[in-house]
Amino acid sequence: MTGHMTLGELRILAVHGLPEIRPGAALGTLIAGALADAGTPLESGDIVVVTHKVVAKAENALVDLASIIPSALATDFARRWNKDPRHIEVVLRQSARIVRMDRGVIISETRHGFVCANAGVDASNLIGGDVVCLLPKDPDRSAAAIADQIEETCGLRVPVIVCDTFGRPWREGLTNIAIGVAGLLPLHDYVGKRDSQGRELKVTALAVADELAGAAELVMGKLDRAPAAVVRGFPYQQGEGTARQLLRKAEMDMFR
Amino acid sequence: MTGHMTLGELRILAVHGLPEIRPGAALGTLIAGALADAGTPLESGDIVVVTHKVVAKAENALVDLASIIPSALATDFARRWNKDPRHIEVVLRQSARIVRMDRGVIISETRHGFVCANAGVDASNLIGGDVVCLLPKDPDRSAAAIADQIEETCGLRVPVIVCDTFGRPWREGLTNIAIGVAGLLPLHDYVGKRDSQGRELKVTALAVADELAGAAELVMGKLDRAPAAVVRGFPYQQGEGTARQLLRKAEMDMFR
Repeated sequence: MTGHMTLGELRILAVHGLPEIRPGAALGTLIAGALADAGTPLESGDIVVVTHKVVAKAENALVDLASIIPSALATDFARRWNKDPRHIEVVLRQSARIVRMDRGVIISETRHGFVCANAGVDASNLIGGDVVCLLPKDPDRSAAAIADQIEETCGLRVPVIVCDTFGRPWREGLTNIAIGVAGLLPLHDYVGKRDSQGRELKVTALAVADELAGAAELVMGKLDRAPAAVVRGFPYQQGEGTARQLLRKAEMDMFR
Repeated sequence: MTGHMTLGELRILAVHGLPEIRPGAALGTLIAGALADAGTPLESGDIVVVTHKVVAKAENALVDLASIIPSALATDFARRWNKDPRHIEVVLRQSARIVRMDRGVIISETRHGFVCANAGVDASNLIGGDVVCLLPKDPDRSAAAIADQIEETCGLRVPVIVCDTFGRPWREGLTNIAIGVAGLLPLHDYVGKRDSQGRELKVTALAVADELAGAAELVMGKLDRAPAAVVRGFPYQQGEGTARQLLRKAEMDMFR
């Protein structure tokens, strides 16, 4: 900051022009390449946000429903709510714990600890046919692999966030959040810092990784083929980071 | 979009240089003026995001704790958790319903229908002394008033979002969300639309107003005196809009 009249500025660029992602694709290489081809190469300080769907495609975290034999629970629930029992079965298999199961919707806790609808199992935006998409097994590791590929491609070490759109309690609408993180601290802690009036801030932390994911969603869109975005100009806190830091422990969760 | 190689771009500008906000201040006039003075005047298509704290100051939604006589409930709870009983009393008065009350924290539903810690009553970043800040009485109306003032100042009709940082269930960290909206639809609905593969999207809606508020937070910061931000380049859906559309009805809330 150079004074009160300075306007801090953030830029968010959608990454277009990626090819159809096949299993084994090096997403980081493709993203760095697409940005360079478009005349806007990655810069030091950039943050790359990648939607989990292309990560799932690259990691072949896809399930052909033709291969699934639904359990009795999946069959009954699907019949009652006019759903595909094979899809329900995949959701049950991807769940570590069912939080709620009603009206055709399953809210579950995944093995990662995320609480979300249908264990993050997603049917839209895929190659077609009866294929559903799972959450990456280890989204932090996925993010780190993309960061490695970017570094190999253009020599820059940038943080990477893998994101997904989740529903939430109390409020309508989905928002994009961080499910995997590499190279930045997902929570920025202000405890003990002082505000512009010299008053000590008591707020624990801001979930900047979730805000970055949400900001990226605004350019990626749902109807667009922009599976990644770049956030330029955010003074992030470097660090190993893991999306697990964004999971609130049940015993500390006053909102549940 | 002009093709796959196009990079969609969003810019987010922090609004610095506002004077200390006094009761009765015309925030929209001050914001439009500060942007013009900084050489980055508002443009058609911009969205203005304003933190609730300056709105509360302009609307004099401040309470001097010296004027508060705490109830027995507030006194007991404050003593047990080493809090200011007068602050607790203000929280109770601002609550329409207590969701939980433990460990010194009160999660309540406000009269607006927001579920948040301490009914949104905030002590930091104020003028000093024992003054706390309430949520605006009608944040949609606050947003509309700011939009009116902006239009009077520079002739542009832009959407305005009033925001606050809220905690949430399941996840650590606060995120900035929309508590008041004017001039845009807070939810962008994709039902019936088709993705890039021609598959119909089943997702209900994205809470773009919350994502815009979160994106703005990234430039406003907690330690900075940037009580407002401009989002430039987001293809928002124009409409009357109200932050009430972001409140999920209890009977529809599978996450609770």
